[in-house]
Amino acid sequence: MDQSVQKLDSTREKLLAEESLQDVVEDIRDLIARDAKSYLKNILLAFHAADIARVFSHLNDEERNYLFQLLDPETAAEVIVELDQTSRLELLETLDKAYLSEVIGQMDSDDATDVVSELSPQLAESVLKSLSRKDSAEVRELLAHEKDTAGGIMAKEIVAVNQDVTVDEAIQEIRRRAEEVEPIYNVYAVDDKGKLVGVVPLKQLLLSRPGVQVRDIMNPDVIAVHTDMDQEEVARIVKRYDLVAVPVVDQSGRLVGRVTVDDVVDVMEDEVSEDISMMAGVTDIVSQRASLFRISRTRLPWLLIAFTGEIIAGFLMSRFQTSFSQVLAVVFFVPLIMALGGNVGNQSAVVTIRAMATGEIDLIDIRRRLFNEIFAVMFNGLFLAILIFSISFVWLHSIKLGLIISLALIIVMLNAAIVGSMLPFIFRRLGIDPAVATSPFISTSNDILGVFIYFALVSLFLKWFG
Amino acid sequence: MDQSVQKLDSTREKLLAEESLQDVVEDIRDLIARDAKSYLKNILLAFHAADIARVFSHLNDEERNYLFQLLDPETAAEVIVELDQTSRLELLETLDKAYLSEVIGQMDSDDATDVVSELSPQLAESVLKSLSRKDSAEVRELLAHEKDTAGGIMAKEIVAVNQDVTVDEAIQEIRRRAEEVEPIYNVYAVDDKGKLVGVVPLKQLLLSRPGVQVRDIMNPDVIAVHTDMDQEEVARIVKRYDLVAVPVVDQSGRLVGRVTVDDVVDVMEDEVSEDISMMAGVTDIVSQRASLFRISRTRLPWLLIAFTGEIIAGFLMSRFQTSFSQVLAVVFFVPLIMALGGNVGNQSAVVTIRAMATGEIDLIDIRRRLFNEIFAVMFNGLFLAILIFSISFVWLHSIKLGLIISLALIIVMLNAAIVGSMLPFIFRRLGIDPAVATSPFISTSNDILGVFIYFALVSLFLKWFG
Repeated sequence: MDQSVQKLDSTREKLLAEESLQDVVEDIRDLIARDAKSYLKNILLAFHAADIARVFSHLNDEERNYLFQLLDPETAAEVIVELDQTSRLELLETLDKAYLSEVIGQMDSDDATDVVSELSPQLAESVLKSLSRKDSAEVRELLAHEKDTAGGIMAKEIVAVNQDVTVDEAIQEIRRRAEEVEPIYNVYAVDDKGKLVGVVPLKQLLLSRPGVQVRDIMNPDVIAVHTDMDQEEVARIVKRYDLVAVPVVDQSGRLVGRVTVDDVVDVMEDEVSEDISMMAGVTDIVSQRASLFRISRTRLPWLLIAFTGEIIAGFLMSRFQTSFSQVLAVVFFVPLIMALGGNVGNQSAVVTIRAMATGEIDLIDIRRRLFNEIFAVMFNGLFLAILIFSISFVWLHSIKLGLIISLALIIVMLNAAIVGSMLPFIFRRLGIDPAVATSPFISTSNDILGVFIYFALVSLFLKWFG
Repeated sequence: MDQSVQKLDSTREKLLAEESLQDVVEDIRDLIARDAKSYLKNILLAFHAADIARVFSHLNDEERNYLFQLLDPETAAEVIVELDQTSRLELLETLDKAYLSEVIGQMDSDDATDVVSELSPQLAESVLKSLSRKDSAEVRELLAHEKDTAGGIMAKEIVAVNQDVTVDEAIQEIRRRAEEVEPIYNVYAVDDKGKLVGVVPLKQLLLSRPGVQVRDIMNPDVIAVHTDMDQEEVARIVKRYDLVAVPVVDQSGRLVGRVTVDDVVDVMEDEVSEDISMMAGVTDIVSQRASLFRISRTRLPWLLIAFTGEIIAGFLMSRFQTSFSQVLAVVFFVPLIMALGGNVGNQSAVVTIRAMATGEIDLIDIRRRLFNEIFAVMFNGLFLAILIFSISFVWLHSIKLGLIISLALIIVMLNAAIVGSMLPFIFRRLGIDPAVATSPFISTSNDILGVFIYFALVSLFLKWFG
């Protein structure tokens, strides 16, 4: 017995490390192939639901369903919550309705709501009907909120007491709800109307005499958010004030739920994925298990924008054909002009957006931002302009060409920096995600402008000094 | 009195909202100008340290120092911790040593260590000497760990009890340490040698009878990390298992500290900033208050790499000069070939790295990754190739040119996808940050290869069918 416990422990240790996941997956596959049910059950018992979910994502459908059957409903619920969306949907489709309802009934209200919202309308309705009256009402209430607001991500599981009860009564309330509300960090105090009036950390309860009233030990200066606050703003508040949970109140200040920090961490990840997918020019970072057509589709729109933009750039070039057919060498610098315009624009946009996302800069900082960007780019631009002047002189033996190219480079870089740093502010004021400014949209428009500025300069010079 | 409290409350409410920060800053500036010390003190009392730090970042040095004087040492410590690095250093330099030591003495050990590590060696040493013996020993111990490991980000403030004590004794220990350890979520149980053997959530303590031994109520299945674990891995574990704090143990399993979720959130932000700065081609996302030369310097290295790469691309073009001087129109499509190669490479690299960062894909997924990427790009590539064939035919009336361009486009896109999705794996195996693959490094090398492939095809076609 002791040995098997040790064996399980070491498997667990192994799983915690990224590198050994493959071994563990192979062991489990092997055990599935050998139909070693009782051994697998023991292993699953020793695993955290999050680890089971990680193993699941490396199994095929059959193996996954086999393993899933071995889980008790509570663990099954946790595993489902931890799975990526595609795997989750695949798995849910194979379950019969009664079991599905039982599993969803085990979930916290926020997770249950997420899962129900992913089901087909008919299936969702039938699940809602077979949940307990209380669970069903909670999920229906949560479904009514916008998905990306505090109300949409909160859970209904909280411990709330009237501010007039004693510490001892509050502890009784915790005992009553201990199983349902997990974890508990704070008890929230409300008045007779259910309005949130204070917060009591468990430590405070633990250290107070049983007969004291909650109102006398609570912190009335409680940071709360409204149900309709955007989830990104909720994340910012949780992060700024180092909270582990933030209570959610409705329009009249009544306590209706809480958002815990683990959900905030997920929100942060989602927002980062959103920003990064914008930078990468994909409409959505979809699961590795999503269909290949879906993966292709997330990438095509931005490619089409780039495609169209570069065709326009090419068309502009064709308009200047007469100038560069005289001095063919000017086209050698098209890649340089385009790439530096693109890079500089991207640098300015990304730095601006990142500073907005972390809350370092606000809308009021626009002037400082512009000044910083122009300075940074002038410094680097002059440096590179001198460099390209020297190179083109050595290469092409023409001071004139060197001057044109270096001047064009500075103008293109300056333009890119101004556009890159100002677009996020403009987008934000217009209510558009500022991260759009980092998308291929900006590098493409910089390419068009860059090509135009460059060849316009070339033709002007040729006309005047040619 | 009541009215002023309300006034303070409403200021606080305003500050919570991003949009009103400017008003609050202006009010405070005004009060500073009018030297309204007692009124300002009242306002500061009502503010959270994080909000004071936000206001600080919009004040000039003089205003900031004026306001800082009005804070008590405890709040001063919190504000310093919340400030961005540049503002913090500026502020610390103006403080006299005795006050600086007093303020640092108020900080948690992890924050104190961060601040001390930012000071000049002499100043750091003199601060360490004037701290209490215990604080000084803790900071020295933490300074000895690598900055980006569990040991480097942990705090020494924890509540630990021997597993043999009773619940009542554990509560006494919490009472003794309540002021120093803030917040407390769990009590850690250790054996006689100080080895971590279990964890007891406060809820559990609250609900257990006073005479029960801690060993009987603790969860022995405690997730802990080693002092030398990389902070990114610590963050992944806290996130995966939804922890609010993770205990840190040394090589022999002795409990030495804990990392709380708010620090993990900061680590996540730093890692994201690192990844994003790589994508943006800046070496470091520095504070808005950093010197302008420093800001320029963070951008120059990647610009130089792009610069060099595009000069090479231009040089390659010059080698093919004879081919495109025959058919000048081929250069109109250089922007298209370059941009789509760059975009596709970036899409593949970013999606791969993001999936690695969120833990969705592991090293074992390399084959599936490659397959997905090739499929996604073939689908989109064919679509765009047909499009460009049609466009170039209508524009240039040449089937031959249309074929060359569309073939080159597919090859360049395919190559970009393979390079973009495989480089992160290669970099990771080599111990290089996979995010390097998203840097201008990759788009620049794609540009060079794209130009080469395109013109090589053009010359081949012209030689065979010209």
